[in-house]
Amino acid sequence: MKFYPEKLSKAQRKFLKELFPEGESGFSDGELLSCGVDASRKHAKPLALVKPHSVKQVSELLAWAQKERMPIYPRARATNKVGGCVPVKNGVVVSMLGMNSILDIDPQDFVAVVQPGVITADLQKSVEKQGLFYPPDPASLKISTIGGNISTCAGGMRAVKYGVTRDYVLGLEVVIPGGEVIHTGGRTHKNVVGLDLTRLMVGSAGSLGLITQATLKLLPLPETSASVLIGFENLPGCLKGAEAVFGCGILPTAMELMDRNTLKALKLHSDVPWPEETGGVLLLKIDGSSESVEADLRQIEKALSNEPTTFLEKGSGEDQERLWELRRVISPAAFNLAPDKQGEDVAVPRGKVAQAIESYHEIGKKLGLVVMCFGHLGDGNIHVSVMYDKSAPGQSDNALKAKKAIFSSTLALGGTLSGEHGIGLTKADYLGMQIGDTELNLMHRIKDVFDPLKIMNPGKAV
Amino acid sequence: MKFYPEKLSKAQRKFLKELFPEGESGFSDGELLSCGVDASRKHAKPLALVKPHSVKQVSELLAWAQKERMPIYPRARATNKVGGCVPVKNGVVVSMLGMNSILDIDPQDFVAVVQPGVITADLQKSVEKQGLFYPPDPASLKISTIGGNISTCAGGMRAVKYGVTRDYVLGLEVVIPGGEVIHTGGRTHKNVVGLDLTRLMVGSAGSLGLITQATLKLLPLPETSASVLIGFENLPGCLKGAEAVFGCGILPTAMELMDRNTLKALKLHSDVPWPEETGGVLLLKIDGSSESVEADLRQIEKALSNEPTTFLEKGSGEDQERLWELRRVISPAAFNLAPDKQGEDVAVPRGKVAQAIESYHEIGKKLGLVVMCFGHLGDGNIHVSVMYDKSAPGQSDNALKAKKAIFSSTLALGGTLSGEHGIGLTKADYLGMQIGDTELNLMHRIKDVFDPLKIMNPGKAV
Repeated sequence: MKFYPEKLSKAQRKFLKELFPEGESGFSDGELLSCGVDASRKHAKPLALVKPHSVKQVSELLAWAQKERMPIYPRARATNKVGGCVPVKNGVVVSMLGMNSILDIDPQDFVAVVQPGVITADLQKSVEKQGLFYPPDPASLKISTIGGNISTCAGGMRAVKYGVTRDYVLGLEVVIPGGEVIHTGGRTHKNVVGLDLTRLMVGSAGSLGLITQATLKLLPLPETSASVLIGFENLPGCLKGAEAVFGCGILPTAMELMDRNTLKALKLHSDVPWPEETGGVLLLKIDGSSESVEADLRQIEKALSNEPTTFLEKGSGEDQERLWELRRVISPAAFNLAPDKQGEDVAVPRGKVAQAIESYHEIGKKLGLVVMCFGHLGDGNIHVSVMYDKSAPGQSDNALKAKKAIFSSTLALGGTLSGEHGIGLTKADYLGMQIGDTELNLMHRIKDVFDPLKIMNPGKAV
Repeated sequence: MKFYPEKLSKAQRKFLKELFPEGESGFSDGELLSCGVDASRKHAKPLALVKPHSVKQVSELLAWAQKERMPIYPRARATNKVGGCVPVKNGVVVSMLGMNSILDIDPQDFVAVVQPGVITADLQKSVEKQGLFYPPDPASLKISTIGGNISTCAGGMRAVKYGVTRDYVLGLEVVIPGGEVIHTGGRTHKNVVGLDLTRLMVGSAGSLGLITQATLKLLPLPETSASVLIGFENLPGCLKGAEAVFGCGILPTAMELMDRNTLKALKLHSDVPWPEETGGVLLLKIDGSSESVEADLRQIEKALSNEPTTFLEKGSGEDQERLWELRRVISPAAFNLAPDKQGEDVAVPRGKVAQAIESYHEIGKKLGLVVMCFGHLGDGNIHVSVMYDKSAPGQSDNALKAKKAIFSSTLALGGTLSGEHGIGLTKADYLGMQIGDTELNLMHRIKDVFDPLKIMNPGKAV
């Protein structure tokens, strides 16, 4: 049993107040409760909240925390859906929102250097003004931060063509327990020197150290993009459509899928463009130069003309936003199916998506729940929403049963418990279903190298 | 001081002969000498050579090696340029060429599963037959293996658009010292569960374990490609040309640069298409659907029409190979400048390439040596060849002085000692110039987690 503090000693509180003066620390119930929750709706009350504005403060904090065996919970906008930000073992929540400067955007080096509290969409807008492009686009990008994105290896819709956050992190400044400031990677696009500490940090959910700066890779900004919304009679039709697109040798920027329950939820929420007989929808985006986007669009339409589609609608420029609006409102629309939602973000090998979704529907049917599936068909990453009613007898239990059954089915198909949200608290009990004892043991020992007293975000990642 | 064995005991030899019967092991001088060298031309004679055909054999070997503290040197085609395959501390060389099967190519999952001894070009041809694409293309791809590519995180010309080997490794089967077989990652394109052991293995130069199987990500095969060879009066002109291309929002598949000394070497080797006043050449490739490639080509030509080019030549389909042949013969052509070569593969931030190359030329001038630079402008990865004559007094010493000066200059520009070859033996003495003590210490302790007795490729990576 690890030791975790039940309250702050007078000396500890004094230390924190001195290191984080007026406005940089909080100890009131209100402040502590509001920084103990995240998008998972899990919550816990920490012992203190601090908000550093410099690496020096972070370094002094982590030197002290190591000495005091004080748990440290890095936090930014807390859009984490799996409880990754919840301070379950007491300790100090460290808000990184005070370190929110874009330090450098270099259009020659194709690099941006940012502090962790920068909002992803703000970075994107800033680099786009200079003809540059930062592709990772988690759904939360308008509110989530680069630091949070790195900690979870955030994905997004554009991952099909452009990859995930991992693929854009060139270098990091990280403070490790004990207060040492380390630098991993660098400013070059290619780098193979020593072991890859940079990618070890990405996705480690703040369990190894606290990221204080990131050097990110940028691309040239594609001139334009266009989107196509295509209806099919059923799920296998959607997959055949996707194959036809890939068969053209075109790698779409995004390739999203909506299953029949998603279509039902959307129809209850707003006007939808597809005809009644539609049982599945694909939403594609392609990007490039104007001429090449037009050419690719023609080729995609041609390839799809041989498939049993129920409708097809195109959009380009601003006009495509109305198509994407349908994708964006899925989450709120879901509550038209039931008042409560349990969401997972499993991924399966790309060719197994239809089979996986059918198995999730089946699981729901057996348990008397509606299971709604949508997400990133292009990389097999499916958001599975189990819709239920807490107030109906047995439904909460059944939702939990569905969760485990969904995980079993996913793993049986060669899938993974998480494509982009991570394990956090909500899946911690299921980690052993996927990762073997030997591999888990290696992960724990790697964590020990950085954090021998297990003060960094304890209870998460490994 | 670590213990390393001077010779095999009778029992050790007996064990190896039993585990690796006829044809799978070698102990003769000829066999041992030929497996102790790599493309760095460094060499050392190991105590034994074995050639496993199954994971079981590898597992038994690593259980035994751990018990005996016997150094293990994974090896495939030994195209490594930095001595990564050389058995400097005695021990057993393990040739992975017996495990060379492509186990699965799945056009629905966009995944290939291969053993480490598969030749990269063979995999590429096999997947292309099914309309699929494995982008990493180190110059050695016709002879080097996937296992070697993963161990070094091999890059290549297409890295500008498609990234490096790291970006295509989804999962690994690895045998670690002690003989345990671990599985990292999986078959899904997205995966964030636990710490990222997969990317920790990529580029670790066989220092953590022995890779016995890899699951690789595939893309749809682009329909076609085209290339453009463009001459400029000087190096800054080349960089302005590159900026003009990126400015179109086009991300070329490849963007290679040749400096004036490279042009000189090529002219002494074969017919060259550029006029006399050319001081630098760019070679671009773009890919996509036929129509979009044509459109992008027009746009690139238009953008370059405002730049001071000395000539421009295009090629598409098979016809572009004559342009790439010029790139391919650079290495042999170099010896027209001097009989001996010392090659580095530094990388600098993309915008610093001209400055870096000018500084390398200056270093050569001061030391009376010709420094020839070419390589991957698109990602700032420059191959620097210091040409010298061993038989001329002082030139070997000066080449070594040039090496250190090139590293200093590279690091001063925010660069790295290696973009894609790794550190190996030839740069081991310089590792501390780039990586700090704290970071090196972390790397050593991570190695300890996998390999506490330091038997895996000792003296390399960290």
